[in-house]
Amino acid sequence: MVIVGAGFAGLAAARLIARLPVQVTVIDRKNHHTFQPLLYQVATAGLSPGEIAAPIRWILRGHRNIEVLLEEVVDFKLEQKQVTTREGTLDYDFLVIASGATHAYFGHPEWEPLAPGLKTIEDALEIRRRVLLAFELAERQTADAQSVSPLQFVVVGGGPTGVELAGMLAEIARHALNHEFRNIDPKQTRILLLEGGRRVLGSYSEELSGKTADQLRHLGVEVHTSSIVTRIEPGAVWVGDERIPAPVVLWAAGVAASPLGRKLGVAVDRAGRVLVEPDLSIPGRREVFVIGDLASLNDENGKMLPGVAQVAIQQGDWVAETIARDLEHQPRRNFVYHDKGSLATIGRAAAVAQFGKFELSGYFAWLAWLFVHIFFLIGFRNRLLVMIQWAWSYLTYERGARLITGSDELPGWNLPKSQVQAEEDPASEPATPRIQRRA
Amino acid sequence: MVIVGAGFAGLAAARLIARLPVQVTVIDRKNHHTFQPLLYQVATAGLSPGEIAAPIRWILRGHRNIEVLLEEVVDFKLEQKQVTTREGTLDYDFLVIASGATHAYFGHPEWEPLAPGLKTIEDALEIRRRVLLAFELAERQTADAQSVSPLQFVVVGGGPTGVELAGMLAEIARHALNHEFRNIDPKQTRILLLEGGRRVLGSYSEELSGKTADQLRHLGVEVHTSSIVTRIEPGAVWVGDERIPAPVVLWAAGVAASPLGRKLGVAVDRAGRVLVEPDLSIPGRREVFVIGDLASLNDENGKMLPGVAQVAIQQGDWVAETIARDLEHQPRRNFVYHDKGSLATIGRAAAVAQFGKFELSGYFAWLAWLFVHIFFLIGFRNRLLVMIQWAWSYLTYERGARLITGSDELPGWNLPKSQVQAEEDPASEPATPRIQRRA
Repeated sequence: MVIVGAGFAGLAAARLIARLPVQVTVIDRKNHHTFQPLLYQVATAGLSPGEIAAPIRWILRGHRNIEVLLEEVVDFKLEQKQVTTREGTLDYDFLVIASGATHAYFGHPEWEPLAPGLKTIEDALEIRRRVLLAFELAERQTADAQSVSPLQFVVVGGGPTGVELAGMLAEIARHALNHEFRNIDPKQTRILLLEGGRRVLGSYSEELSGKTADQLRHLGVEVHTSSIVTRIEPGAVWVGDERIPAPVVLWAAGVAASPLGRKLGVAVDRAGRVLVEPDLSIPGRREVFVIGDLASLNDENGKMLPGVAQVAIQQGDWVAETIARDLEHQPRRNFVYHDKGSLATIGRAAAVAQFGKFELSGYFAWLAWLFVHIFFLIGFRNRLLVMIQWAWSYLTYERGARLITGSDELPGWNLPKSQVQAEEDPASEPATPRIQRRA
Repeated sequence: MVIVGAGFAGLAAARLIARLPVQVTVIDRKNHHTFQPLLYQVATAGLSPGEIAAPIRWILRGHRNIEVLLEEVVDFKLEQKQVTTREGTLDYDFLVIASGATHAYFGHPEWEPLAPGLKTIEDALEIRRRVLLAFELAERQTADAQSVSPLQFVVVGGGPTGVELAGMLAEIARHALNHEFRNIDPKQTRILLLEGGRRVLGSYSEELSGKTADQLRHLGVEVHTSSIVTRIEPGAVWVGDERIPAPVVLWAAGVAASPLGRKLGVAVDRAGRVLVEPDLSIPGRREVFVIGDLASLNDENGKMLPGVAQVAIQQGDWVAETIARDLEHQPRRNFVYHDKGSLATIGRAAAVAQFGKFELSGYFAWLAWLFVHIFFLIGFRNRLLVMIQWAWSYLTYERGARLITGSDELPGWNLPKSQVQAEEDPASEPATPRIQRRA
């Protein structure tokens, strides 16, 4: 059988299915499983990629009946029970599709290069590059009238990811960069969080949303709700007809399911999620399952299950159990989601938690968040390293992984006169007074 | 005053000069200082970039009279005592140029994309990507007649870097990937080290060279001396008229000094190194110093000082002292290099060391190497993390940072039929028997 995607859902399924007398092929476009809940820490230079991601074949190395392929699935031939990859095709008896979701730009794909989202390690490194580079360029160019001063960062989307990013950006500006710059004051950096809806963390209770907004403001984040972004251009964001200049814009708003969902010829919702049967299979094909962020299923109250790791893992386990029951010719049962509660971190030592009726916010919620996330991190070595990193940055406010790799260009960073001249004639006279003055 | 480059030489100079009553501007193209001696560990997935590099402005944050600029120096106007950057110009009273060296391809720049060298974090990640990707592609395509089997990696150059890379590649193939692949056996990987000269580690004694070669062979590396690479093409290396197929070719052979050396209008050697005065200034300009890999100076025996960290650091210190003496109107003195010995690591727990007459090889040399390198690593946090990583991979043979980021294309990887077909027609019938056979 074939499992497409090694995120939380795919891995959970693979690990249990491996116990059954079947040959399993796990296909993923990346060689590594990424622990997405901590991706924002890589983006904000708190952790290194190697600490929140692990090679898929290393994770599954112990299961001799599992084969891992670094390959991209492009289509399905459900009649022939075949998966089409860029390389060829694979036959399956059971197929589990867990190719997840990516960010959506509400019909504005042209916004993507201007406002990167946060789904992969590469995304995280690109965001890190832009954030750190903005400070470097500002330091270099403060004296120049044309440079953006003070710095403004905009985070679009007030869900968990947007809140985490805004909180960490505030911490970097307030603390991590202390005493490192001579021409700018990072503390002056404005961080704007734009949420289109009425409140941040809309999936949480009114009260926790309010507390989250308060804690964000306490960290220095300007929270703007009911603010729908109408336009993004290099170096600026528009809300209605208000232009907000910002060298760095981060996207944490829309989510779109993997395009593979639309290749199945069954009904999908507006985000491209596959409307699955109660047993997580697709209509008319008992041997094909869709799980994780790519699946759309409502709970007993008719509320759609959220796109979180918990749901993905429980669905992965469920599919494994279902296949086991099929092999034993037992009847299938419907998937039931057991909500263990939700946690979102806000900043250095603040978070909100909701366990059914029980709510928690502030320091203890943060400790709970810390514990849960380190506990579920893959690999003991990673847990150890991440704990050290955390203890370190908690005590020193330092962010250990502040490396800018790749290009040193920033889209929409308005070049000061001096550079424009320099480009025309490298040997031209200096144009930035600050630099000219230096002896 | 201005310091160009924040490698070992530039940082050493900056730290001491900061104690003088002067304003210092440190310029570097990167925002981080890279601990180059451990770069091969990033390339071979043993360490993460954040563990061997640190932001320059973080390293120097304590010195209020030092300003750090992320900028690229393109030229000098020595008459006007100005440095020309891409942005404008800076005035200086003293100028210290420590822009280092990069790899040279012996007049074959077209080889660079085919055989990456190892000088920056980006280089290391590119090498890691190619090495890991080669195994992934082989696993995916073994069944196909056209695929390279067994895998062959070629390292060009038998200096310290080449020896380190070859040794670690052998360890990865023999141990780190154990039990992870189903279609290929990484142990079958051939690792060839091609050295143009008579022996590897030519700067060490005959005896240590011999021991190094033996230890490399013991690790499974095929050491070929007096083997000059005459041609590199996608997927293969030529030695004379022998064609060696290799999906991954790594370059550890030539070194070329930074092009800035040639902008000074003074004599340079064949590698572009500036022939400096005994006080490390350049002929005719007492206020301009060139240090580190960019400088060419002979020791008392007329032997050129090697391009190693030790020389760079001692020269940086020396320049600081010289400037201090100038400020106190004391006569200058000539730089004298104190050789503290050299160390090169070979593999998991083997190394060679030469301290004057005293020589050491094997496990204890490796311990010495480990101690020295962790000790000189920048930042306590990094030392701690690197020690843990090392202890971990020493005990488990695991390489913690085995992530492939970026493209999944490998230049010169010969595409098997199946993929060629798939590209013409994604829905074409399967062509790789192995995949077709699977159920």
